[in-house]
Amino acid sequence: MNLVPVATYRGPIKAKFGTPRQSGLAPAVEGRVEFLEGYGVEEALKGLEGFSRIWLIWGFSLNAKEQWRPTVRPPRLGGNRTMGVWATRSPYRPNPIGLSCVEVTAIGKNSISVKGADLVDGTPIFDIKPYIPYADAFPDSKPGFAAEAPERKLKVDFTDGLPFSAEQLRALEQILSLDPRPAYQDDETRTYGMAYEGYDVHFNIKGNVLTVLDARKGTELD
Amino acid sequence: MNLVPVATYRGPIKAKFGTPRQSGLAPAVEGRVEFLEGYGVEEALKGLEGFSRIWLIWGFSLNAKEQWRPTVRPPRLGGNRTMGVWATRSPYRPNPIGLSCVEVTAIGKNSISVKGADLVDGTPIFDIKPYIPYADAFPDSKPGFAAEAPERKLKVDFTDGLPFSAEQLRALEQILSLDPRPAYQDDETRTYGMAYEGYDVHFNIKGNVLTVLDARKGTELD
Repeated sequence: MNLVPVATYRGPIKAKFGTPRQSGLAPAVEGRVEFLEGYGVEEALKGLEGFSRIWLIWGFSLNAKEQWRPTVRPPRLGGNRTMGVWATRSPYRPNPIGLSCVEVTAIGKNSISVKGADLVDGTPIFDIKPYIPYADAFPDSKPGFAAEAPERKLKVDFTDGLPFSAEQLRALEQILSLDPRPAYQDDETRTYGMAYEGYDVHFNIKGNVLTVLDARKGTELD
Repeated sequence: MNLVPVATYRGPIKAKFGTPRQSGLAPAVEGRVEFLEGYGVEEALKGLEGFSRIWLIWGFSLNAKEQWRPTVRPPRLGGNRTMGVWATRSPYRPNPIGLSCVEVTAIGKNSISVKGADLVDGTPIFDIKPYIPYADAFPDSKPGFAAEAPERKLKVDFTDGLPFSAEQLRALEQILSLDPRPAYQDDETRTYGMAYEGYDVHFNIKGNVLTVLDARKGTELD
């Protein structure tokens, strides 16, 4: 089956590094689902205002060229245990499609404002469905190895004078506290960079403290 | 993006008529996700036993040729109110993909046994993801026009001697009690037929009582 994009996600995270690994982990992250020509007509959105959440079905566009394998090493298991691909949400799967539940904050003329997405800016969206609690919500379902949301491991310290609003800082704090480093990487001398809101945000991590050093206007990391 | 089927759903309902309109509405319905060559290897299923539910992302294969429209008339609103396509789970959407949460009852060598699917036998499955409560379960999410599961409207009477097991009858009872008729169809003289477990099951509906008249071996209705 051939899928056509119906919308594009626009959000603050401009590259894969730093993107939360599941929806809802950084609930303050604000983004927008922008419909492509013909898909966001007013009638098509009628009734959506009654729902507080939607599903996004989207493409792992940045992983499109990677091969899938029967087993993966989920980051949350420290990268040292294998799981079958069907038991994970790994992007490296036969059909690289993602599923995310996001909060609807506003419905525009041709877009939906959302919170809590785990998508990189520019991600193609193939379908949007209302979240229906009676069919979708099973809080007591056995959660395998994902029993609890990943803990916020890191304390985040911000340098003064960063060019972000309080809301943007709050979202950045949530993102960084999840520890964006690849599993097993633990180099205290290293400076990491993340593309956020049009800036390259640099930080280092010592013990369990992440310090944001600066944010430079730029697109080096996009 | 081009999706390739990774599995086929095998279940008791052989044609669209009678298929529940959401997963979980007929929880006793037993089916199987049968992997296609290369996708169901043992390693790919490792860890799945820890989860009690999975998501199926599948194709509305029977509606593939229908055009989508910006508004639809959800059957549960009686067919006389329009909703925007993005506020519904209607199969008539730009990309005809379905999303269903099903219960895992057993994991086989090359298949997953499931309960509660709203899929027709033969439906192509494109992705399988574990259900992760912290990311997927929002029981208090505002449910729009789908506040409650459709009620079981009909009392189902079975004629004696039907060729089904107790389990099959229980599933059939759940399916039929949801009232499979199209909205507004209310003809007490009509005999309906549904393709179930290799039989053509015939029934009529008078008031709120559905009477199963017979089940004839056959594939007339497939």
